[in-house]
Amino acid sequence: MNSLSLQKLSVSRTDREQSSGKMTSAKDDLYPRKILDYMEGFMVSKTLFAACELGVFEQLHASAQPLSSADLAQALGLSSDATERLLSACVGLELLNTQTNPAGEVVYSNTEMSTVFLIESSPRSLYHSIQYSSRTIYLCWHYLTDAIREGNNQYEKAFGINSKDLFQALYRSDDEMVKFMHLMNSIWNICGHDVITAFDLSPFRCICDLGGCSGALAKQCLSLYPQSSLIIFDLPKVIQTSRQHFVSEPHERISFCEGDFFKDALPPADLYILARILHDWTDQRSIELLTKVHQSCTSGGGVLLIESLLYEDNSGPLTGQLYSLNMLVQTEGRERKGSDYSRLLTTAGFTCVQIHRTDKLYDVILARK
Amino acid sequence: MNSLSLQKLSVSRTDREQSSGKMTSAKDDLYPRKILDYMEGFMVSKTLFAACELGVFEQLHASAQPLSSADLAQALGLSSDATERLLSACVGLELLNTQTNPAGEVVYSNTEMSTVFLIESSPRSLYHSIQYSSRTIYLCWHYLTDAIREGNNQYEKAFGINSKDLFQALYRSDDEMVKFMHLMNSIWNICGHDVITAFDLSPFRCICDLGGCSGALAKQCLSLYPQSSLIIFDLPKVIQTSRQHFVSEPHERISFCEGDFFKDALPPADLYILARILHDWTDQRSIELLTKVHQSCTSGGGVLLIESLLYEDNSGPLTGQLYSLNMLVQTEGRERKGSDYSRLLTTAGFTCVQIHRTDKLYDVILARK
Repeated sequence: MNSLSLQKLSVSRTDREQSSGKMTSAKDDLYPRKILDYMEGFMVSKTLFAACELGVFEQLHASAQPLSSADLAQALGLSSDATERLLSACVGLELLNTQTNPAGEVVYSNTEMSTVFLIESSPRSLYHSIQYSSRTIYLCWHYLTDAIREGNNQYEKAFGINSKDLFQALYRSDDEMVKFMHLMNSIWNICGHDVITAFDLSPFRCICDLGGCSGALAKQCLSLYPQSSLIIFDLPKVIQTSRQHFVSEPHERISFCEGDFFKDALPPADLYILARILHDWTDQRSIELLTKVHQSCTSGGGVLLIESLLYEDNSGPLTGQLYSLNMLVQTEGRERKGSDYSRLLTTAGFTCVQIHRTDKLYDVILARK
Repeated sequence: MNSLSLQKLSVSRTDREQSSGKMTSAKDDLYPRKILDYMEGFMVSKTLFAACELGVFEQLHASAQPLSSADLAQALGLSSDATERLLSACVGLELLNTQTNPAGEVVYSNTEMSTVFLIESSPRSLYHSIQYSSRTIYLCWHYLTDAIREGNNQYEKAFGINSKDLFQALYRSDDEMVKFMHLMNSIWNICGHDVITAFDLSPFRCICDLGGCSGALAKQCLSLYPQSSLIIFDLPKVIQTSRQHFVSEPHERISFCEGDFFKDALPPADLYILARILHDWTDQRSIELLTKVHQSCTSGGGVLLIESLLYEDNSGPLTGQLYSLNMLVQTEGRERKGSDYSRLLTTAGFTCVQIHRTDKLYDVILARK
């Protein structure tokens, strides 16, 4: 299954078509189909992003029947000709179904996948993640060459913001912070269950989610481990927003703790979850944080790292390799191999490092004190 | 073979891996792998673009042996850590090979495809096309949602340039014009032979390439049809640049004609080539231009359109669907179906419309006067 991550932007076709076409054309006359496809990658992303941002999937979902491009354009206030092109490309990407209605018009409807993942209100929605990718990450990547020359993130060029304090840059306004929290939330809607069930966490009664953000993982823990209680630790303004927008109903097994995990004391706990935390930081800062976690951890307790793991031989997965460049353009960190995290953990005093690959976006590492 | 164009960014793997993974994971728990892959599309593009722009393939080509990331970073003046991540992702994209040298270092070398298509000096280089995509087209696409709302191109937002006169915007500086000409040139290095041999053009002795730009297609015609002579028609400053940079050696069978094909008289000819011309313009302007071509054409002569054709049922190819959105964000035009071009041609007075699909980027239509 790991090889899957090497298959980028594949649209389902029969095996015969998949194998025959590409291989023969590549061999017969060395036509650079693969390179041309890579060159179109940003167009594929932006087509998906635009359809999402303009509310195409939402509008089709709300409608009792499939809609024509003219109907959709009118309902959403879009150019009719441009909308027809967008919908057509979404059909090509298999994000929409098309048919001809009794009146002879071409009409469009959502695929099952679009309904589940692209409607804002769906429990497994990627809507906010897509918005963040489209508006923030896409622009940061415009400066990838500069990032590779300079070896650091491109917030300054992309947004005119000094990024010396990373999260001050990321959370440069309440609006940006809420968007970022939605991004985190939407990823755990998709991957949360797999990472929380990768190991049996029932022995850990008090669990602290460091940088717990919107509380998405905390909620998953609550429902899967009925004996546990959760502490969501994050910056004061994140905690306030989390209470307002994400964990608004009081819950006897969830509590909040405001602080900066580099500067402030950590609450004692049996298990600390660090989900997509260490990939933001250098090895040095990661060891600093893990050492602090080790000190606060109860004896026999542990730490759970949730990250995109690179293969030990550097051959992939492609998603992890791209995410590592993504960390370059946006943060101070990088994606790492299991052995890298193991080294950081043991340097900080942890033992019994266990690595679990999920074959999806995020993998899991458990270590014990 | 048409189905190929639906296969975006596929990296070769065995059939078993290709089919098993994607299908089962999609069915078992509706994991949105396809959407997540689409979301990474821009990262794939920019990884290729950055490696090209930073001279990675060039440097590896110039070296007698495979190089380590530290060597490459030093030679190119890049951050060593960032370079390692970039090379790793290029391995994941199968643009580079990797091995361990006798000293135990991981070293990198070009794949055959990278040598042929990504080295600037290669006869079939896509280097300039990649540069243009990275610096110009990528930014225009950042405003796709606006383009779909407004129904027009986004030069003003992306570059602060009024695009009322399209080619004044595209050619806003000599530097931009030369880049654009290189883009055109590099596409015909890949696709020129197929489009010029799609029909037997030997009956046409005097061929005029309207908007002939760098003369890449004219040169292909010359070598394939030894009886023909070529006129390259384009804007005065394009002709001057073409003579300076692209067709610098005088050739007895190539002549140049300066003018604006909407405003000035066209030279008489037996065949007019319009390669990627009509997709820049509205139906109305296309008919206006084709009518003018028809008037100037010798009796029994013809017109050859070279464009990316959409399928008649709107189902694809995906590349054409994306290119039609690309025309939206950059021009006044769109990609069209064969039947659309047929209608434009017959409206302008042409007959005997023949359509030839190449299954690569560009297809060909021949019509007669």
